[in-house]
Formats: sequence, C-alpha cells, structure tokens
Amino acid sequence: MTDVTTASPPASSQAPAPTRDRLIRAAAELFRNKGYNGTGLAELLAAAGAPKGSLYHHFPNGKSDLALAASTWASDQMLALIDAAFAPAPSFRAGAKTVCYKLAKLFDKQGKWSGCPVSATLFAGPENNAFRQHAADLFESWIAATARHAQRLGLPQEEARAAAENFYILLQGGWQLARVRRDSDVIRALHTQMQMPPQKTD
Amino acid sequence: MTDVTTASPPASSQAPAPTRDRLIRAAAELFRNKGYNGTGLAELLAAAGAPKGSLYHHFPNGKSDLALAASTWASDQMLALIDAAFAPAPSFRAGAKTVCYKLAKLFDKQGKWSGCPVSATLFAGPENNAFRQHAADLFESWIAATARHAQRLGLPQEEARAAAENFYILLQGGWQLARVRRDSDVIRALHTQMQMPPQKTD
Repeated sequence: MTDVTTASPPASSQAPAPTRDRLIRAAAELFRNKGYNGTGLAELLAAAGAPKGSLYHHFPNGKSDLALAASTWASDQMLALIDAAFAPAPSFRAGAKTVCYKLAKLFDKQGKWSGCPVSATLFAGPENNAFRQHAADLFESWIAATARHAQRLGLPQEEARAAAENFYILLQGGWQLARVRRDSDVIRALHTQMQMPPQKTD
Repeated sequence: MTDVTTASPPASSQAPAPTRDRLIRAAAELFRNKGYNGTGLAELLAAAGAPKGSLYHHFPNGKSDLALAASTWASDQMLALIDAAFAPAPSFRAGAKTVCYKLAKLFDKQGKWSGCPVSATLFAGPENNAFRQHAADLFESWIAATARHAQRLGLPQEEARAAAENFYILLQGGWQLARVRRDSDVIRALHTQMQMPPQKTD
C-alpha cells in the first residue's frame, strides 16, 4: 500500500503536539472550502488558535508543508470511511453503497460546498511535483484500499482493481455534480452506476 | 437547453472587441491552470496584453465577471467538442468514445495539469451563489447536449438522460485521475466504463 502517513501526525509513537493537530485540522477544513490559494495565513492561524512561530516550528516550509499534512490527514479519514463501510459488507456492491451513503451524509454535514480535501488543497496550489505526487499517492491509496476489499469480497484481482478505479472516478465526478446542484442524492445514487465486471470493449 | 452564451463574446451580431476576447482567453487559460485565486490581476492583464482600464470597461466587476465569461467561453468549446464527436457517430457509445479520445488529446496538448475550466475557475473562487449557479448551468448544458445526442442515437429519453449524466461524472472524475497520473490513457479508456442502460438497483 502506498504510504500516506509520512506527513501526518505520529499516531502513537509520541504524544501528538496539540498545536500541530489544530493547525492540520484547521488547514484541512479551510483548504477544502476555500482552496489552497483562497486561504490566507492569518485566517489559518486564527482558526487554529496558533501563533505564527508555531506554524514554522511544526512546518518549516509553512503553508505548503501544511497542505501536504492536511491532505494526508483528510485522506486518512477517507481511508477510515472506506474500511468502516466495507469491513462488515456482505458484498463489494453493498460496501460501495455504504460508502456512498456515508459520503452523502458528510456532504450534507459540511454544508454542500466542500471540495475533495485532496484536490481542493493540492490541485489549487502551485503546480509542483511534490503536490502532484502526493495527490497521486493519496488517491492511489483509496483505490488500493477499495481494491483490497473488492478482492476480499470475491472479485478476481484484475476486476477488483478495475472496479475500485471505476468507483473512485464515480465518487470524484459525482461529488462535483452534487456540489453544483447542492444535492447529496447524486452521491447517494453513485453505486448504481458502478460497472462490474468491467467491460473490455476498447 | 440552458443558455450558456449570455456572458460570452457576441458571435456574429457585431464585431467582437479583440481586447475583450483576449481577456477572456487569457483568463480561461490561467484559471484552468492556476485556479481563480491563484491567478493575479497583473498576470492576467499581462497575458492578455490589456490595460487595467479595459478590464473594468468590459467587466465592471473585474475578475469575478471575467471568471463567469471565461468559464462560459471554455464551456462553449466543450459543447462544440461534444457536438463534433456525436454528430457523425453511428451510436451513442461510439460518439462517447470519440469524446474521450478528443479530450485525451486536449489533455496531452495542455500539458497534463490543466483542470476542468469550469471547476478550476468557479469552484476555486469565492463561495457565492452566482459562481455556483453558473457552474451548475454550464455542467447541465453539457449533460443536456449529451442526452440529446443519446436520444437522437436511439436511447429512450430517461435512459439517455441517465447515460449522459453517467458520462459527465466519468469525465470529471477521470480527468482528475489522469491529472495526478499525468496519463491521458485514463481519459481515453473512460468510455469502457459507461453504464448503459443504467441499473435501477437503488
């Protein structure tokens, strides 16, 4: 599995610094709603209740380091959601339906304008290879986690991988449509568009 | 059909003002690559070769008016691409495949980092209802145009609508994956994931 944890707060090896966590959570929330470039440093520090010095103490490169850490943190929530939905599921399709329902609920809770926490943070930032590669790693980790569940639930390896990628694409595209329509039902219904097994017509 | 042309340059009723067109094209290009908030006014004027006064002459509210016009202009290109792909197609699936190939070619030409010109412009901007509604109208116009072709090519009305929406979602989600992977083949293969007819399992 792609390692998505390198930029996230240490989970158990040491006591997490509350300021660092507050910075990450505030950044994830702000970037998701206003984008990387739309979020000012002063606004970020105010939301985290953190002095400027502590930002650079924890994130030497400031906002761009924080973007990597915040998107990893948000991605970890997505991985947890994927696992929680698929772990008790009787089939891949049933687990996928639960993912859709959980995401739709999250969408409603977040006020119907939030973007994908990874793309809103890393795509909206400066074009650089660190951001692009990190976004690629995080997305691949969602696809890999989904594919593992698909395989565990009976799909052959290649089909599991294709179904996971198709599901990721539907979630990303569906989230955008839900966002402009302010309608979480778009997300709730995405599992009905899943293609299993993939057609090989190309 | 949703009218997507109100904010675009007049096509034939009068001679278009070159400065206005240059501003729109430069804005569409910059917003797509750097996002709304990532694009500075000075950079925009320099790219368009336009003085500041002409920006406010053509777009009284400045950058936000320009965002609406630029996303409309870019959306019109997408509508033209949809029509060009489907018009000669023997089937909806064949037309959709051509859309994927044309978009993949565009993706390669644009340097593999460009975002969707509508979402990169209107989602990355300030949260306001004008931007959200405009994005909704533009996306709906793509779906409506696709659905008309689907119906003309033999799909019943409801299936045509569902197939068009599914295709839109695949294109949006697939473009994001192609972007992080820098791989236009993701887009080229999207038509193989189309679901026709839609399953009603919900």
